[in-house]
Amino acid sequence: MQDIDRDQYLVKSEPYYRPVHQEVDLYRAAYEARMPVMLKGPTGCGKTRFVEYMAWTLGKPLITVACNEDMTASDLVGRFLLDINGTKWQDGPLTVAARIGAICYLDEVVEARQDTTVVIHPLTDHRRNLPLEKKGEIVEAHPDFQIVISYNPGYQSLMKDLKQSTKQRFGALDFDYPTAEIETEIVAHEGKVDKPIAEKLVQIAHRSRNLKGHGLDEGMSTRLLVYAAQLIGKGIDPQSAARMALVGPLTDDPDMRDTLDAAVNTYF
Amino acid sequence: MQDIDRDQYLVKSEPYYRPVHQEVDLYRAAYEARMPVMLKGPTGCGKTRFVEYMAWTLGKPLITVACNEDMTASDLVGRFLLDINGTKWQDGPLTVAARIGAICYLDEVVEARQDTTVVIHPLTDHRRNLPLEKKGEIVEAHPDFQIVISYNPGYQSLMKDLKQSTKQRFGALDFDYPTAEIETEIVAHEGKVDKPIAEKLVQIAHRSRNLKGHGLDEGMSTRLLVYAAQLIGKGIDPQSAARMALVGPLTDDPDMRDTLDAAVNTYF
Amino acid sequence: MQDIDRDQYLVKSEPYYRPVHQEVDLYRAAYEARMPVMLKGPTGCGKTRFVEYMAWTLGKPLITVACNEDMTASDLVGRFLLDINGTKWQDGPLTVAARIGAICYLDEVVEARQDTTVVIHPLTDHRRNLPLEKKGEIVEAHPDFQIVISYNPGYQSLMKDLKQSTKQRFGALDFDYPTAEIETEIVAHEGKVDKPIAEKLVQIAHRSRNLKGHGLDEGMSTRLLVYAAQLIGKGIDPQSAARMALVGPLTDDPDMRDTLDAAVNTYF
Amino acid sequence: MQDIDRDQYLVKSEPYYRPVHQEVDLYRAAYEARMPVMLKGPTGCGKTRFVEYMAWTLGKPLITVACNEDMTASDLVGRFLLDINGTKWQDGPLTVAARIGAICYLDEVVEARQDTTVVIHPLTDHRRNLPLEKKGEIVEAHPDFQIVISYNPGYQSLMKDLKQSTKQRFGALDFDYPTAEIETEIVAHEGKVDKPIAEKLVQIAHRSRNLKGHGLDEGMSTRLLVYAAQLIGKGIDPQSAARMALVGPLTDDPDMRDTLDAAVNTYF
Amino acid sequence: MQDIDRDQYLVKSEPYYRPVHQEVDLYRAAYEARMPVMLKGPTGCGKTRFVEYMAWTLGKPLITVACNEDMTASDLVGRFLLDINGTKWQDGPLTVAARIGAICYLDEVVEARQDTTVVIHPLTDHRRNLPLEKKGEIVEAHPDFQIVISYNPGYQSLMKDLKQSTKQRFGALDFDYPTAEIETEIVAHEGKVDKPIAEKLVQIAHRSRNLKGHGLDEGMSTRLLVYAAQLIGKGIDPQSAARMALVGPLTDDPDMRDTLDAAVNTYF
Amino acid sequence: MQDIDRDQYLVKSEPYYRPVHQEVDLYRAAYEARMPVMLKGPTGCGKTRFVEYMAWTLGKPLITVACNEDMTASDLVGRFLLDINGTKWQDGPLTVAARIGAICYLDEVVEARQDTTVVIHPLTDHRRNLPLEKKGEIVEAHPDFQIVISYNPGYQSLMKDLKQSTKQRFGALDFDYPTAEIETEIVAHEGKVDKPIAEKLVQIAHRSRNLKGHGLDEGMSTRLLVYAAQLIGKGIDPQSAARMALVGPLTDDPDMRDTLDAAVNTYF
Repeated sequence: MQDIDRDQYLVKSEPYYRPVHQEVDLYRAAYEARMPVMLKGPTGCGKTRFVEYMAWTLGKPLITVACNEDMTASDLVGRFLLDINGTKWQDGPLTVAARIGAICYLDEVVEARQDTTVVIHPLTDHRRNLPLEKKGEIVEAHPDFQIVISYNPGYQSLMKDLKQSTKQRFGALDFDYPTAEIETEIVAHEGKVDKPIAEKLVQIAHRSRNLKGHGLDEGMSTRLLVYAAQLIGKGIDPQSAARMALVGPLTDDPDMRDTLDAAVNTYF
Repeated sequence: MQDIDRDQYLVKSEPYYRPVHQEVDLYRAAYEARMPVMLKGPTGCGKTRFVEYMAWTLGKPLITVACNEDMTASDLVGRFLLDINGTKWQDGPLTVAARIGAICYLDEVVEARQDTTVVIHPLTDHRRNLPLEKKGEIVEAHPDFQIVISYNPGYQSLMKDLKQSTKQRFGALDFDYPTAEIETEIVAHEGKVDKPIAEKLVQIAHRSRNLKGHGLDEGMSTRLLVYAAQLIGKGIDPQSAARMALVGPLTDDPDMRDTLDAAVNTYF
Repeated sequence: MQDIDRDQYLVKSEPYYRPVHQEVDLYRAAYEARMPVMLKGPTGCGKTRFVEYMAWTLGKPLITVACNEDMTASDLVGRFLLDINGTKWQDGPLTVAARIGAICYLDEVVEARQDTTVVIHPLTDHRRNLPLEKKGEIVEAHPDFQIVISYNPGYQSLMKDLKQSTKQRFGALDFDYPTAEIETEIVAHEGKVDKPIAEKLVQIAHRSRNLKGHGLDEGMSTRLLVYAAQLIGKGIDPQSAARMALVGPLTDDPDMRDTLDAAVNTYF
Repeated sequence: MQDIDRDQYLVKSEPYYRPVHQEVDLYRAAYEARMPVMLKGPTGCGKTRFVEYMAWTLGKPLITVACNEDMTASDLVGRFLLDINGTKWQDGPLTVAARIGAICYLDEVVEARQDTTVVIHPLTDHRRNLPLEKKGEIVEAHPDFQIVISYNPGYQSLMKDLKQSTKQRFGALDFDYPTAEIETEIVAHEGKVDKPIAEKLVQIAHRSRNLKGHGLDEGMSTRLLVYAAQLIGKGIDPQSAARMALVGPLTDDPDMRDTLDAAVNTYF
Repeated sequence: MQDIDRDQYLVKSEPYYRPVHQEVDLYRAAYEARMPVMLKGPTGCGKTRFVEYMAWTLGKPLITVACNEDMTASDLVGRFLLDINGTKWQDGPLTVAARIGAICYLDEVVEARQDTTVVIHPLTDHRRNLPLEKKGEIVEAHPDFQIVISYNPGYQSLMKDLKQSTKQRFGALDFDYPTAEIETEIVAHEGKVDKPIAEKLVQIAHRSRNLKGHGLDEGMSTRLLVYAAQLIGKGIDPQSAARMALVGPLTDDPDMRDTLDAAVNTYF
Repeated sequence: MQDIDRDQYLVKSEPYYRPVHQEVDLYRAAYEARMPVMLKGPTGCGKTRFVEYMAWTLGKPLITVACNEDMTASDLVGRFLLDINGTKWQDGPLTVAARIGAICYLDEVVEARQDTTVVIHPLTDHRRNLPLEKKGEIVEAHPDFQIVISYNPGYQSLMKDLKQSTKQRFGALDFDYPTAEIETEIVAHEGKVDKPIAEKLVQIAHRSRNLKGHGLDEGMSTRLLVYAAQLIGKGIDPQSAARMALVGPLTDDPDMRDTLDAAVNTYF
């Protein structure tokens, strides 16, 4: 166990993150209390980037796990592997994080099966430990360890939601798309286009976000705007770039496509 | 088997627990008769803390298992692992508890599949033994061994409930949130804020608990109140702290959020 | 295989069992014909105790298996385990019972999957053998071997019932709660309280049993009455003892709880 | 493979079988053509006994497999097992039967999953071989090999039925309960009671069989009549014996029990 | 891999096949283009026999796989087996066929899970290769390799059908029962009866085929007619033979049985 | 890991691909930005061929994975295999692609389970890495690595669709059947027939494509037209060739078959 390379989990360089509200201060206070934190918000609005930024700011290692419905508790906690000398225990990412004092980020935790969410319980209350039941060991969490989860309330259905006994173990931070001004800044910076182009892309996104729930499941994410900007930067004409990066990924419904194409044509 | 470290399962220091009714005496009498005990009550009202307190009071080791629907009987009882000399039996947490005379606490047992609940049957009647069928051994429980389970009746559905043949093996203790006075004391003590702040947080919680069944699945737990207090103690303004620790984790419904925000604004 | 410890399966001391009807004679005749026997009756009325008593009376070893829906045929019959010399066959409890001539008691067999119930078929007709298909061996049952199953007709649903081709391999013995007089005797003896207390507890139980199907899935079992008596014996006041041992385990419905509490208050 | 003990599969002594119609001649002709045969009929009417009788008559080994919905194709065909020298192939019962020229009897084949039934296809047409796909070997069936399956049409539901492409590979023999005269003879012979007792038991059975589809899933099988006779032979009074062996196993419905008890009381 | 015995997959002697339409020429042209071929038609009409005949005619090895819903991609492609020297790759039947240049016949492919059908995609277009993803090898198909699948459109339901992206990789040949004249010839030849008997059996079959969709799932197959003829050849009277081989396998519905029995009695 | 044969994944010769719109330029710009790309379009319209063409044009290795609903995350990422020296990690195709800088093409990704789609997330944003959680290694993607997925919007149902959080990680290129002129060119070139024949086949295809959603799930693909041309080239008369290659694979509905046959007869 002594051979875990803690440094590989450090965020190497400052991630580009543009604070929006109080989120940096609130997170810092929560981290000081080692309070588990839940990040809520729509797809591609910057939750993952924010955790990376905070890990970099705090100088703590970050271990990210993309949750999914086929993930088992062993995928988080660890398992025995067969070795030349018989079975050898292999720590899972959650156990590694608890040992080295990393921030453990469970992305889209609502996708995971119940055994995943239940497994984190003892790490999220006064016990701050992780029983490796199969190994007969109780791992006491490193003082730096903290757990962060994300989920997208838009996906919440009657079938898939966190249990109250899980939810009530977290402080919650709400995320949303940045303001037009900030988003323009991000798209120009990340997509390497000048500000007028970025502004137009953001305005197209706003139109699409107003259609959420009226034919679209989600509006265009900041990430897609950056994609469109990048294509334009490579010499693609703005209409084709927008069609490829903004309209195509979002929907296959012909009427909705016409509506979005019209929005694109308004600005370009 | 002789190398189980019994001491690692002892509760190291007195857990902070504030008795509410007769629960300490009733539990003690049940333990003297080695009667299996079932703790019922809502999320975050202190069931886990109570078992830790009783284990500390009685000076017995405590082994806690967070049950979940993907847990198998082998996760409780044990399994054969492959070793350099072939397969070796590895006791599960229930078996360890039966051998060393621990209190075995199965948290949220109703989440477990039937093989879990059925496996404990012979340990909960006059037999007090655990057949390790795969190993061909019958473990006679240590005289100190006792089994405790918890569950949250609010979750009980037609689909998921304990069978009567399991329920009728336990004495039952009902838990609920503490009285306002006691809860204020707990929040002030655990959250390290002064009494007036704690009082206000408790009053907000009471408002939310009245909304249970009227738009909320559960009211705010004592744990969340402590979180809010901790954030306030780190210098966060009370409204932001309450929004992060009390409102955000509970619900994503906009109307319900407005109602809870209004309750927060009434007191802060 | 020669190293199975037959003696560990013998019932060590005479179990306390109070015969109710003809059940002892009927079972003895069935055992003489080695007829498979099915015990039917509600939770906690003494089916398990009866089998132990008969095994003790007949001086035969008893192997009990708590059936559940996650149990596989291999859990009953046996499997290959990996050893230092390759794979080694490990008999399951049914195979052990067939070899050493034990009474094999499959508790709540209706919970098991079909492969369990089908596996016992050749042991329950004129063949009296158990093909270990994975091993290529046919185990001829020891002359003393007999199979006994239990199930609770109250649980029977359209989804879960024994197939007729299984049912028609068994003689059936019906069990029910003992008469008031006998049950009082049992509660006084097992719970170590005097007769008037035991009588009152039995009367409370009768009230609850009349509510079966009218808001309760089952009435209070004899086992719960013994629990209540034990708590009273430890100095708990009768009302609290009854609430913990009789009312709490049975139901969480507030109206039904009031009704049962009223019954308790009538007698104590 | 040369070490399969063919003799252990021979039926040791002539099974007691009382022919009813043409079934012995028809089976013999089918066997001569090595035509696969399907035995249809209700529970406990003698299908298994008939196959044993025919195997004994023809002097061929018999391998019986009780099918169930959790049985895999490997359970029939074989699998690789880990040995001290690596993996070793272990023939399943169907493969053994194909190699040694046994009659392979798949009891209640409709319970099996599709991979079972599909696996037998090449053994049931002009190919008469069994590809061991995992081993890369094609087993040519021994000239004596024949396949026989049984199923109970009463169980047939929309969910569980043999596919037409399976059914149309078999000749079919219908079985039913024997005539009153023959059944009396069987009960007297097997149950070791005199003819008048046997006659009464058969008449009770006839009453129950008329209730099939009118509250009963199946009528009383010949096997249950033999059980009742055996209990009477052990000194149990006829009414108690009938209740234990005939009524109890059949139904838990109180009205139906009354009806059947009345039938018993009419004769005893 | 060099030790695959290609010859064991050659069809040893000319299968009896009576061409009906253009199917032999069409198949030969498709094989010359190495076009994947799909054989459609009802149960027992000769699809399997046709592939064997074509493989014999073309002098190519034939590997047949009976598909089923429990078959995994590994069952087709291969897997690692544990050997004395660690794991060793074992080719599955599809891989063997691709390596040695066999015709690979996937019988009733619609029964297979999606991973089976998807696995064959790269073998059915211009790529003509099979990526063994677990082994990191891409098998280029032998120039002689061709893939053939069969399915019975009568079974097609909304739940189980080939995806268009699979279907559109195959040329399709439709099969049906042969004309009365040809079928009579087949029954007489295979069943070893004279022509008048065969003619009557074919006429009974025609009656049953008209009932398809009017109480019968399928009409009598040519195979069943051959069975009936064989029984008659063994001395069984025609009515009993027809009942065992034609009526019994088809249906358990009493009315439908009467109808079919009447058809039998019309001719015999 | 150093022994991965990168060259085996290079496309050996220029694939025949006939550009239709801007797709080559758009893909090239997306590749320069290493933007993940999603190809949408009906069955058999050339998506796979296009990726091969682009990989050849860009001189990058191509690793194709046919996704299916039984594929696990380990099938993509890799797993531990048992070796003579214990377990050895085996990279999956996605990991190989990330290491050697290949274009990884996930064909019909919508068929995969969520763990597949979630596993690619960190490779599709600014992180461009792949955590091998079971191995405790984070693979940084090679600078040349790009991910491409395909899916057929026609299959999209409520049950099976990509999550928005996956969709919004890709630029999208729409594919459709080529124009009549281009398709004629392709069919003549690939099917080796002269232009008038190819033209007629394309016209038949157009008729079928107009029936999509009016009785047909999909129209005839270009691939099927090539098949028909090849059969004609082998001397099969055009009507039979069209029936085998165009009509048969598409539908079993008798009315729809008549309609399509009529279309065939119009042109041949």
